[in-house]
Amino acid sequence: MVNIGIIGAGRIGKVHLESISYHVKNAAVKAVADPFMNEDTRAFLERVGVEKIYTDYKQILADPEINAVLVCSSTDTHAAISVEAIEAGKHVFCEKPVDHSISKIEAVAAALESHPGLKFQVGFNRRFDHNFAAVRKAYDDGRIGDAHILKITSRDPEPPNPAYIKVSGGIFLDMTIHDFDMACFLTNSDVEEVYVNAAVLVDPAIGEQGDVDTAIITMKMANGALAVIDNSRRAVYGYDQRAELFGSKGMVATSNDTLSSAVVSDANGITGEKPLFFFLERYMDSFAEEMRQFVDACENDTDVPVGIHAGLQSVKIALAAKKSLQEHRPVKLSEIQ
Amino acid sequence: MVNIGIIGAGRIGKVHLESISYHVKNAAVKAVADPFMNEDTRAFLERVGVEKIYTDYKQILADPEINAVLVCSSTDTHAAISVEAIEAGKHVFCEKPVDHSISKIEAVAAALESHPGLKFQVGFNRRFDHNFAAVRKAYDDGRIGDAHILKITSRDPEPPNPAYIKVSGGIFLDMTIHDFDMACFLTNSDVEEVYVNAAVLVDPAIGEQGDVDTAIITMKMANGALAVIDNSRRAVYGYDQRAELFGSKGMVATSNDTLSSAVVSDANGITGEKPLFFFLERYMDSFAEEMRQFVDACENDTDVPVGIHAGLQSVKIALAAKKSLQEHRPVKLSEIQ
Amino acid sequence: MVNIGIIGAGRIGKVHLESISYHVKNAAVKAVADPFMNEDTRAFLERVGVEKIYTDYKQILADPEINAVLVCSSTDTHAAISVEAIEAGKHVFCEKPVDHSISKIEAVAAALESHPGLKFQVGFNRRFDHNFAAVRKAYDDGRIGDAHILKITSRDPEPPNPAYIKVSGGIFLDMTIHDFDMACFLTNSDVEEVYVNAAVLVDPAIGEQGDVDTAIITMKMANGALAVIDNSRRAVYGYDQRAELFGSKGMVATSNDTLSSAVVSDANGITGEKPLFFFLERYMDSFAEEMRQFVDACENDTDVPVGIHAGLQSVKIALAAKKSLQEHRPVKLSEIQ
Amino acid sequence: MVNIGIIGAGRIGKVHLESISYHVKNAAVKAVADPFMNEDTRAFLERVGVEKIYTDYKQILADPEINAVLVCSSTDTHAAISVEAIEAGKHVFCEKPVDHSISKIEAVAAALESHPGLKFQVGFNRRFDHNFAAVRKAYDDGRIGDAHILKITSRDPEPPNPAYIKVSGGIFLDMTIHDFDMACFLTNSDVEEVYVNAAVLVDPAIGEQGDVDTAIITMKMANGALAVIDNSRRAVYGYDQRAELFGSKGMVATSNDTLSSAVVSDANGITGEKPLFFFLERYMDSFAEEMRQFVDACENDTDVPVGIHAGLQSVKIALAAKKSLQEHRPVKLSEIQ
Repeated sequence: MVNIGIIGAGRIGKVHLESISYHVKNAAVKAVADPFMNEDTRAFLERVGVEKIYTDYKQILADPEINAVLVCSSTDTHAAISVEAIEAGKHVFCEKPVDHSISKIEAVAAALESHPGLKFQVGFNRRFDHNFAAVRKAYDDGRIGDAHILKITSRDPEPPNPAYIKVSGGIFLDMTIHDFDMACFLTNSDVEEVYVNAAVLVDPAIGEQGDVDTAIITMKMANGALAVIDNSRRAVYGYDQRAELFGSKGMVATSNDTLSSAVVSDANGITGEKPLFFFLERYMDSFAEEMRQFVDACENDTDVPVGIHAGLQSVKIALAAKKSLQEHRPVKLSEIQ
Repeated sequence: MVNIGIIGAGRIGKVHLESISYHVKNAAVKAVADPFMNEDTRAFLERVGVEKIYTDYKQILADPEINAVLVCSSTDTHAAISVEAIEAGKHVFCEKPVDHSISKIEAVAAALESHPGLKFQVGFNRRFDHNFAAVRKAYDDGRIGDAHILKITSRDPEPPNPAYIKVSGGIFLDMTIHDFDMACFLTNSDVEEVYVNAAVLVDPAIGEQGDVDTAIITMKMANGALAVIDNSRRAVYGYDQRAELFGSKGMVATSNDTLSSAVVSDANGITGEKPLFFFLERYMDSFAEEMRQFVDACENDTDVPVGIHAGLQSVKIALAAKKSLQEHRPVKLSEIQ
Repeated sequence: MVNIGIIGAGRIGKVHLESISYHVKNAAVKAVADPFMNEDTRAFLERVGVEKIYTDYKQILADPEINAVLVCSSTDTHAAISVEAIEAGKHVFCEKPVDHSISKIEAVAAALESHPGLKFQVGFNRRFDHNFAAVRKAYDDGRIGDAHILKITSRDPEPPNPAYIKVSGGIFLDMTIHDFDMACFLTNSDVEEVYVNAAVLVDPAIGEQGDVDTAIITMKMANGALAVIDNSRRAVYGYDQRAELFGSKGMVATSNDTLSSAVVSDANGITGEKPLFFFLERYMDSFAEEMRQFVDACENDTDVPVGIHAGLQSVKIALAAKKSLQEHRPVKLSEIQ
Repeated sequence: MVNIGIIGAGRIGKVHLESISYHVKNAAVKAVADPFMNEDTRAFLERVGVEKIYTDYKQILADPEINAVLVCSSTDTHAAISVEAIEAGKHVFCEKPVDHSISKIEAVAAALESHPGLKFQVGFNRRFDHNFAAVRKAYDDGRIGDAHILKITSRDPEPPNPAYIKVSGGIFLDMTIHDFDMACFLTNSDVEEVYVNAAVLVDPAIGEQGDVDTAIITMKMANGALAVIDNSRRAVYGYDQRAELFGSKGMVATSNDTLSSAVVSDANGITGEKPLFFFLERYMDSFAEEMRQFVDACENDTDVPVGIHAGLQSVKIALAAKKSLQEHRPVKLSEIQ
């Protein structure tokens, strides 16, 4: 049994709490800490059966009953809290991105090296999605052969508040970072070089924040494959999340999930449903699965499925993408320190 | 909060227990009774938090804390236990079929008339499936217009043990009964007449039990629509569960659910996944949803979504189908008493 | 080189003329006869290069240059002209149905027995359609195993003029007859018994002609398979032509053809094109292919792909269907003389 | 009536000859010239009814009966013969690419300016394909809104003989050139900048010729849209030809064409057919359609659908792509002279 403390009771913290409570058999959330704890949240936590409710996360780190913490606080605190938690002897599940700064992520990696018995997992939940996992499985099973071309389509149904972009670090660090990790996951390879072709086509306010909202990012993978991601901050038909891996022996491709398979044929055509609205609808099962695997790794002392290397690599790719956009040239990952 | 007692701790009883424990917020399973209670089951029940574990269901009926019972015992006991439970003042959720005998189902209906405050729901879980619910919704929304032709395909991945057929009442009462109810649900109508075209094509041992394993059943619905169900006890590609409703304004059709949308293109063709294996995989969400709606009806004193009329109608259709097969002619439902 | 005379210059006669002119290398249409020959038709025929234009088909039968005739006149003349043509030593391609009367079709069969060197093909063009041919090929290749259940959906985009129904013989003889032949073709078997479940749901004027416009026809095939056809005279989304053959080893199914594969995703859903409008759009390639195969059979003295047996069988099934509807009972084909 | 002379009796010349003979009503091929005319070709031409068979194309240019010529000779002669034909007063249909040299294409453009009454069409047949035309139509109809992202997948079933690459000018000039034109066609825009990410993953012999066999090409379109093409010289599942246009109001996407829509479900999964094998199978109808439209433009003195601008633009993009690959940087089209 793994006893868990959750640091940060925002949206994603609550998602993990419910996943663990309802879908993970060998774990229990014993404590939740949030500096902005309010009555609604407190009532919600009590209803789910959380016994210890704090405003200071240090109380969780100090609690000997707690084996593992979930770092669901704001991004700028991820790395520091992770290091503290590791030093307090806790396994850590850290939301993505670990940090915007390579050196801070490396500090987490250093802390982990000093505590080889502790697990550290990064919250790239999409690796646990049924569709993307099936792509990787087809590749692992040898059905695709050598990877030649990877294509990822990732489009949000609506753009974030432009104010959010200021703190998020921009599209590559808040949105594409999932796709960067997915590119590594689906080809089972690191990235070597990145080139960005991007524009502001959805909302000029995004451009005013110095960011782009539409992008095609092409990459050379370390294993020789070529990859391309296309992003948009607004797909009017909904959350578009697809991948296609093409290789020497074949291709595997996924399509979007819908609420039902019902298709209506009428005088207007043959019409199926739009994709599930956004990430909470689309990826809910994957949040539960990442928790299950994190808990299993903690309990059985096995490798976590998404470690600090993935956390570091994804941020390096995002920073290389930013540099490519600014300098209008391909950028090697080795340029990013 | 609805306190529930489950009568029968077999496979479906356990499914409901887990659904309520993990997916229904305003209900709790307080007691489970099973005459064949063993150590494994007892351990399972305790792990989920069931406090009262009995071998005699009458202990549940006598318990004033219990508001509602789930009748998950063997089919031949459904009706009698339901009547007892109603007379003990409990809401009842009864697995399908309510009974093989019309008069016994009518006895349940009579008991309900004497206890107008009690809820009685029949376990036609497929009505709560995302795909079939979407078909009905398209019809209710007027997108199909008047119903003209309903087609249901329902094929199992593998036949039951021939010995089971003896007690099950045969294909129409154990398998097609779901499709009969679905025909009524999707056209929002009763059935008027049934004709069966059937054969033993899968397993001669089924024929030796006096049953068939492959059938096309065509029906006239009371609202004028025509309907057809095709059944097989063995589809080598897996559980095939589809519906198509055609009408004056259009058609709505569903396809099978798969584990993922991944499609592999290779030298052999373009290959997607087989359907989810069988009813536990395919309909798990619908079991949770039927519990949610049953509990809501009990708690808020609203109508149940599947009442005794559906329970009676489905059995009448099944008996008319048996008669049609025996007598090789169309049989009206009014002939079944 | 096969020299062809076409008897009847209506729509289907012109289709065959163009097919032969543009798509059949080893044949030429030398003569066309039509009692209602008008200037437009004459100009059309001359443009395509037809040399001999008659009002009396007997001039074609008397022409020693002509090897084969296409009987594209009105249905009530098919059988008599076929017999005459056979006796004149011509190969015959006869449009469907050969006749509404079994005895007249048998007279054609008798004439053929007296002229064993002559070919006689019936115009069941759908057998040459790419989709239906692929279903049969999958079956012939053993991918389906033994045939268990055949399902054919056949719905027209709009009903014929009710006046036409008077002469056409009704839905089973003018529309379903194609599906009856398809059932035999796809299961490679004759029909043993037919049961009809039908109604007037599209247009009361059709009912006033004593016909139905919506039907589910279920059949026992001689090889043990069960089959079902569903028909409607009006599908608002267009011509719906699908088949599904299910057996001991698998299932093969086809979907409708569209003008393009383009799918538009927008705020209303994911919308593909409607099926090709009607039989001329949908089956144009099959008309050319049936001509190619007829000409090949004539030229190389090989078996025609659709002979008099198919012509007789399809009409027998249609008459059995009419009888089943009238007498409200399953009808064996052996009852039809 | 347009009288046509075909210069070059290789594969594509024969395709056009058959298209015109069988599918274009207002045109006739009167003459064919080929320096390597052999007996087989001569016999074929006579069978189709070509009256004048030459080895010297100048005989066609000198023939006053000829209104239009099709330049189907080797690529290095396209531009020169086109200029000669224009000066001889003939309309010209020229196969792609017009030339590898910008200045030679500009010479053709100059000749056309001196002969404003003559038509010049470039053989980008894919614009006339049912699927790609439907993408453009959806865009023209305003269903997509402003174009944001265009994705083209174009993969051949098998690589050409490496020797061919020497004369073809490499992948961008012999294969991607169709996709470059398609990018312009589908966004209705020129290209502004190109970046190539490419590798030799299919066949080292291609690399030895100084070429690549796998590529992701990303472009900025003049209208602000972003575009990406992915190419492979070998898709084991067959010729993969898809496009997807995403914009402010929606997305339109196409899938591959197959011989039939038949899908087999069995113990291995749900398997559809591979795409049509290669360009002759896939694009045959488009070859006929481009001829029809060329002939119509000649006969009615209307604009050709694909003029010299498209011929020039596509080669400029290909040369920019080569430069991008060599110099490992984005290249603007304005750099290509």
